[in-house]
Amino acid sequence: MAIKSFHPPQRILMGPGPSDVSPRVLAAMARPTIGHLDPVFVTMMDEMKALLKYAFKTENELTMPVSAPGSAGMETCFVNLVEPGDKVIVCQNGVFGGRMKENVERCGGIAVMVQDDWGRAVDPQKLEDALKANPDARIVAFVHAETSTGALSDAKTLVEIAHQHNCLAIVDAVTSLGGSPLKVDEWMIDAIYSGTQKCLSCTPGLSPVSFSTRALEKIKSRKSPVQSWFMDLNLVMGYWGGAAKRAYHHTAPINSLYGLHEALVILQEEGLENSWARHQKNHLALRAGLEAMGLNFVVPVKDRLPQLNAISIPDGVDEVAVRNILLNDYQLEIGAGLGAMAGKVWRIGLMGHASNPRNILVCLAALDDALGRAKAPVKRGVAVDAAQKVLAG
Amino acid sequence: MAIKSFHPPQRILMGPGPSDVSPRVLAAMARPTIGHLDPVFVTMMDEMKALLKYAFKTENELTMPVSAPGSAGMETCFVNLVEPGDKVIVCQNGVFGGRMKENVERCGGIAVMVQDDWGRAVDPQKLEDALKANPDARIVAFVHAETSTGALSDAKTLVEIAHQHNCLAIVDAVTSLGGSPLKVDEWMIDAIYSGTQKCLSCTPGLSPVSFSTRALEKIKSRKSPVQSWFMDLNLVMGYWGGAAKRAYHHTAPINSLYGLHEALVILQEEGLENSWARHQKNHLALRAGLEAMGLNFVVPVKDRLPQLNAISIPDGVDEVAVRNILLNDYQLEIGAGLGAMAGKVWRIGLMGHASNPRNILVCLAALDDALGRAKAPVKRGVAVDAAQKVLAG
Repeated sequence: MAIKSFHPPQRILMGPGPSDVSPRVLAAMARPTIGHLDPVFVTMMDEMKALLKYAFKTENELTMPVSAPGSAGMETCFVNLVEPGDKVIVCQNGVFGGRMKENVERCGGIAVMVQDDWGRAVDPQKLEDALKANPDARIVAFVHAETSTGALSDAKTLVEIAHQHNCLAIVDAVTSLGGSPLKVDEWMIDAIYSGTQKCLSCTPGLSPVSFSTRALEKIKSRKSPVQSWFMDLNLVMGYWGGAAKRAYHHTAPINSLYGLHEALVILQEEGLENSWARHQKNHLALRAGLEAMGLNFVVPVKDRLPQLNAISIPDGVDEVAVRNILLNDYQLEIGAGLGAMAGKVWRIGLMGHASNPRNILVCLAALDDALGRAKAPVKRGVAVDAAQKVLAG
Repeated sequence: MAIKSFHPPQRILMGPGPSDVSPRVLAAMARPTIGHLDPVFVTMMDEMKALLKYAFKTENELTMPVSAPGSAGMETCFVNLVEPGDKVIVCQNGVFGGRMKENVERCGGIAVMVQDDWGRAVDPQKLEDALKANPDARIVAFVHAETSTGALSDAKTLVEIAHQHNCLAIVDAVTSLGGSPLKVDEWMIDAIYSGTQKCLSCTPGLSPVSFSTRALEKIKSRKSPVQSWFMDLNLVMGYWGGAAKRAYHHTAPINSLYGLHEALVILQEEGLENSWARHQKNHLALRAGLEAMGLNFVVPVKDRLPQLNAISIPDGVDEVAVRNILLNDYQLEIGAGLGAMAGKVWRIGLMGHASNPRNILVCLAALDDALGRAKAPVKRGVAVDAAQKVLAG
């Protein structure tokens, strides 16, 4: 055995995440490690909480990054809020609603599924009907921005309906945070989780979460202990909470937190609303190019998520061959389909640092070549120009 | 709000972890992020598994890093192996045995505690007695190297006893991996977890684990699903397993894995046995200095863990003031006591990259000054010389 240091290539990350990471974030990851109880580190934690509150648009005291990827952020919400026997309405319109169901059931809860077509927003009327049919439901859970399809749901309305029926609302914001309008306090979301490797353009591995006072009350009044020791917020709060003395719970992922701190500083410098606008504008430019080629979006305009563009693979095209050309000849990663959409769609991400004009033009030019070589029935040589017109507009 | 980039100080980390991180590992953390399904990344994952097998001295196929800190590695072992109603013998001789009990109970298991004095190795006879009294026990769990006290237990013997009574053995190797002899296959350990921020000298945030074939059989034959979706090895193996096509489970913490890969390459370059010997030799030098000052170790010589030196705080000394002098005047972090030992001991780590002569001398010189200013009843001006004699020997 003689394994050597690993030197990854420099890719352009336009898949469903991770997205391109800013050199500033990478530089922050490499700063000297200090202790997780060092007073200087505790100051950084306080700043981190303030920055996350800004990104989530919330004053929730319990706002912090879980020390593990978004899937663990999801599980943190469910294990803390769902008690055995609790009925949870889960709206599913893609892969991640299915994962919510798994979480509910592993907590001993009863998941009532409300199914919508993949590639469409969650239908508020169906949620309303489900809640009327299940007056004993305690929680509603849905995905704000479905990474598997690129559909954006109306979180504000869905939370309102949940509250009208005395339910708490758990929201998956993995792909929306930082990229699309998201207002935790104004929309009265009770529990929300996200990831770092999408529109925040940090490296993967952490999961920002936030919990309302109402959610905290439910956690504090649980009859049974939280089944996960690692994710038990009653314990985690001893470290991340506002107490003068932070109690050791687990060793925080110090350098990953440096990276997230820097990513959030960058977001603050740009301004949250400016970031939302940038994601939307760049989406329109990419869309113009893709549509000029004759490619079709999976999601109708009104439900479309700007940072995740799912397009149908043209008939007869070897989709793996196309992605391999992009990766090997252009160092460009786009995403394959996931779950029921595997083999049917490509997912082109325009997230965070990756959402910029240069990436759009490179992606369209590379796709033009790759689709040509794959003999796809598309219009060649028009995509870049169409995108540039929008970018200039 | 105008939060700026965070620039941590350059500390010397001689607490219970994190330990000093090699500049090579920090540089690796800052390399370009690539996708978690990128073929180049999958090659790195295969190398990572080979390197971890080397560090654990195992051929276990299921050897990989959990995407979260050591506490989640512990929980991964318990949630996968403990089913509701399972009786688990937990040997406790410090803080982390207590955490194991929490894990067992949150899995619906029955924890039978075998208590040993804090600062002493686990007594094999007590385990034997507990197993005779509990013939229905299914699992034995213990901590190989107790980070809260610096006691090293005889893992080989304890596992043998567990097997004689038809139990699987779960071993906490958070502080031993890379620093003290640890032979997973030869000792027939069934499930083991560690951390990255101790003797591997990587940043915190990942937890290497390994499972024997016997452990895997128990996981596959479970009657109830694993209560954690994130930690369910049946699912995680789809990504980390040897299959030609890696299935997406969660987004791997890419850059943290770069860091661990580099830390393991460094371990391989040094040689595992050489690393064990270095930790032992440096411990003896530090010990000579501390004892020359008149400071006393908590753990008797035969049970002593070289990489975690717990010493009793001299009477009448303001222990917080001493640690503050070390941190503020010398940029040196040592650890406070934890749990029942809070306020009674200091914990001086000599782990991984931090286990070197320079750190020993700086630490002893700084302690000499700080204890002098704290008017501690110690012998001044002798510690450095005593350590140097051992280092030269």
